Amino acid sequence: MKLGRLNHIGVATPSIEESLRYYRDVMGATIAHEPFDLAEQGVKVCFVDTPDAQGEVGKGTQIELIEPLGPESPLTGFLQKNPQGGQHHVCYEVEDIEQARSWFEGKGKRILGPTRIGAHGTPIFFLHPKDMMGQLTEIMETPKAAGH
Amino acid sequence: MKLGRLNHIGVATPSIEESLRYYRDVMGATIAHEPFDLAEQGVKVCFVDTPDAQGEVGKGTQIELIEPLGPESPLTGFLQKNPQGGQHHVCYEVEDIEQARSWFEGKGKRILGPTRIGAHGTPIFFLHPKDMMGQLTEIMETPKAAGH
Repeated sequence: MKLGRLNHIGVATPSIEESLRYYRDVMGATIAHEPFDLAEQGVKVCFVDTPDAQGEVGKGTQIELIEPLGPESPLTGFLQKNPQGGQHHVCYEVEDIEQARSWFEGKGKRILGPTRIGAHGTPIFFLHPKDMMGQLTEIMETPKAAGH
Repeated sequence: MKLGRLNHIGVATPSIEESLRYYRDVMGATIAHEPFDLAEQGVKVCFVDTPDAQGEVGKGTQIELIEPLGPESPLTGFLQKNPQGGQHHVCYEVEDIEQARSWFEGKGKRILGPTRIGAHGTPIFFLHPKDMMGQLTEIMETPKAAGH
């Protein structure tokens, strides 16, 4: 396997609304996306775009803001430990999700649940942070239209 | 201020050597850089390149591996809490470090120490995670040759 693009870093927040104000007013981001619910994963999501090395906004690694959808959310524990939120996961792209799944299984890495559809509408899975040098790691299939 | 490129994410590790094996053998990275000491900041550093949206390796957001240089390192506490390491900070580029410093001061954000030379050889400073929605945030001046 070849290391893919760092699609996004997942940042947990108690309030996407407050985070969007922060990224706009403090960090100077242009807020180009609307929040939406990813009910299956128990989170509300909103992407914030960053520029790439050529300065093209939306081509750089994104910030994925994630807020719990109710007390059963898998984020609830994280926010109990980190009430302000903070860095939650990293997400790398792969060309073929099934090949990637076999690759990580072959390396003895624990995959958290089945492959499912992620926030970008393509198949994803998560890997256990204890098998990934302390980082909760999401693997996502590159959206077919991306970069073309 | 306008949100700059996400230059790198800082990932703490108890061993850069072990991390490089992980990024190469598990994540499929090509290891293109050598570790070096950033004695002033009490850390050993090594960058790992990722591809951008066009697939160009070295143009995407980098992983900055950081390992403590001795027990006085500011990383020691982080690794006591997270023995395997993990996500430590995010670093955004700005065009002018002094303007950025004034901007964040004007927003009432706590800056951690003086502006100094960072791992890419350009001026940097860090902002207090409690003022930055839980994220230790590094601001660095874009290297003059980057992206040109």
